[in-house]
Amino acid sequence: MNPVSYSIGVDLGGTNLRIAAVSPEGKIVEKIALETEVKEGRERVLNDMCSAIGELRRRMGGAPLSGIGIGVPGVINLETGMVFNSPNLPGWNDFPVRDEIERRLETRVFLENDANAAALGEKWVGAGKNVRGLCMLTLGTGIGGGLILDGRVWHGQVGMGAELGHMTIDPNGQLCACGNLGCIEAYASASAVLRMALAAIRVGRSAALMAAADEVGELTAEIVYIKAREGDRVAREIFEMVGRSLGVALSSLINIFNLPLYVLGGGMARGWDAFAPSLLAEVEKRSVVYRASSTRIERSALDTDAGLLGAAYLPVQAHSIAHPA
Amino acid sequence: MNPVSYSIGVDLGGTNLRIAAVSPEGKIVEKIALETEVKEGRERVLNDMCSAIGELRRRMGGAPLSGIGIGVPGVINLETGMVFNSPNLPGWNDFPVRDEIERRLETRVFLENDANAAALGEKWVGAGKNVRGLCMLTLGTGIGGGLILDGRVWHGQVGMGAELGHMTIDPNGQLCACGNLGCIEAYASASAVLRMALAAIRVGRSAALMAAADEVGELTAEIVYIKAREGDRVAREIFEMVGRSLGVALSSLINIFNLPLYVLGGGMARGWDAFAPSLLAEVEKRSVVYRASSTRIERSALDTDAGLLGAAYLPVQAHSIAHPA
Repeated sequence: MNPVSYSIGVDLGGTNLRIAAVSPEGKIVEKIALETEVKEGRERVLNDMCSAIGELRRRMGGAPLSGIGIGVPGVINLETGMVFNSPNLPGWNDFPVRDEIERRLETRVFLENDANAAALGEKWVGAGKNVRGLCMLTLGTGIGGGLILDGRVWHGQVGMGAELGHMTIDPNGQLCACGNLGCIEAYASASAVLRMALAAIRVGRSAALMAAADEVGELTAEIVYIKAREGDRVAREIFEMVGRSLGVALSSLINIFNLPLYVLGGGMARGWDAFAPSLLAEVEKRSVVYRASSTRIERSALDTDAGLLGAAYLPVQAHSIAHPA
Repeated sequence: MNPVSYSIGVDLGGTNLRIAAVSPEGKIVEKIALETEVKEGRERVLNDMCSAIGELRRRMGGAPLSGIGIGVPGVINLETGMVFNSPNLPGWNDFPVRDEIERRLETRVFLENDANAAALGEKWVGAGKNVRGLCMLTLGTGIGGGLILDGRVWHGQVGMGAELGHMTIDPNGQLCACGNLGCIEAYASASAVLRMALAAIRVGRSAALMAAADEVGELTAEIVYIKAREGDRVAREIFEMVGRSLGVALSSLINIFNLPLYVLGGGMARGWDAFAPSLLAEVEKRSVVYRASSTRIERSALDTDAGLLGAAYLPVQAHSIAHPA
């Protein structure tokens, strides 16, 4: 029942560590989900990852492994295979993670930024499987960006391309973690939803949100979304703000790229029905290129598996380039 | 003294029609500058262009012509060679301009959007001759954009890519000709400078600008720039606004692309010393990618010849792709 060959994809998040064996057609054959024990240190996370990969290889029996791809939350120097600027993985900066894992596993390892990996996953077997280019925003705690141009991840000169979460959408707006004012990340991430909900509670605008938070013991973007679906006015306004903000950013991205497809992924994309109407209205109003050409704006087809599948595609793509059909 | 071979570049503007014979090294060998007789109709402009091209060919004697490239102000359908959406060339919409000129001249003709041609010119022999990618804003009456990614013009799916002038920099800002609020074009084009100057005069804020306008008989962005250089406070504020606005747009573009070079061209780029300080301060403050990687922001090296040279490069590039070294 095992495929002729397979690759392994790793989605190394700040919270979850997920590893899958994936067929050449992009089907997940075996999967292991763990917590990322960031607090236990880098060595522990590497050991967990390598053990899980070993376990998957045993499960896959004698099927040949074409390679391992890892999606990492941080900026990657593609030449050295080192991670830098990864706030979610303290202690990994300037560590030669690719070489270390290759040494431990004696297999070819490919690294990619997690948001780029998600975009690649959507291109391979998701919303973008029939296009050559797409732009993806991954809406999580922050906002990551991935650009697939002419079938390949756009990295920019040092791998820092597609920092789409730090596009300015309001020059005098909210302070962002990056130091800028008015980044899209400060308006359409889960953290932004939470900030807006807490602000509404603080001024006594939303009894419903406060009651929901009290009941569950905490407030999350998901709770705000549930309240929006239930019709709570403040929660709806928050998701409309998310939609309008994404609409401003996407209008610029559409005018810049004229790509056939823009994908919204990450946990926040599950709030699609609450923010999509205001998003699409904003784009229609703002983007001359959107009005004049055929452009799709869709939510991720792969949900939380986008990054995992994109990571698994890295060795497949490298192989297809080395041996073109 | 003539080169072994040459190409012809045409810069077909709404006001000026410039045609040059260019050596394979990107040197202008012969040049003809005319007015674009837009009001006399399309046929007249085509006749003028073809006559001038004929004249250049005579001047070049027997040297072989490798092809003709034309930069056109408007969106070009690259497959059909037709221009659409060209407000500066009324009557050219959906006209098969490439085929018509090829028929008249019996030579291969390449079309390109004028801002893309300018970016290509800078890549060939200008500010970007040592990089593989650059992003260019052409600051004129409006703002055009050109993207060179991996050495080639980025067109997007239907040739509408790089409409960089219509990035939103302030979602509740100035109304733009495209219908959007807060496009960079509404803050950093010559028209925007003029609008801001007239507004200052109207409320009696700038006696100096009013006196200058009276003296010359009209107000232009160039006059505002001269007054800024002379130290007029209102004129300086206007160019600082231009700089800050460009800084917001460039911060986003740098975060999106992580390219090695961003070029500012067009007539307004001559006001570089008046707007560059506030531009660079804004980018330093806003762009995490700018702070973390080596990024050049420069004015055009080719000034008004960028589009002409880029147009002349189109047949050279096509030739080098057909016959790789």
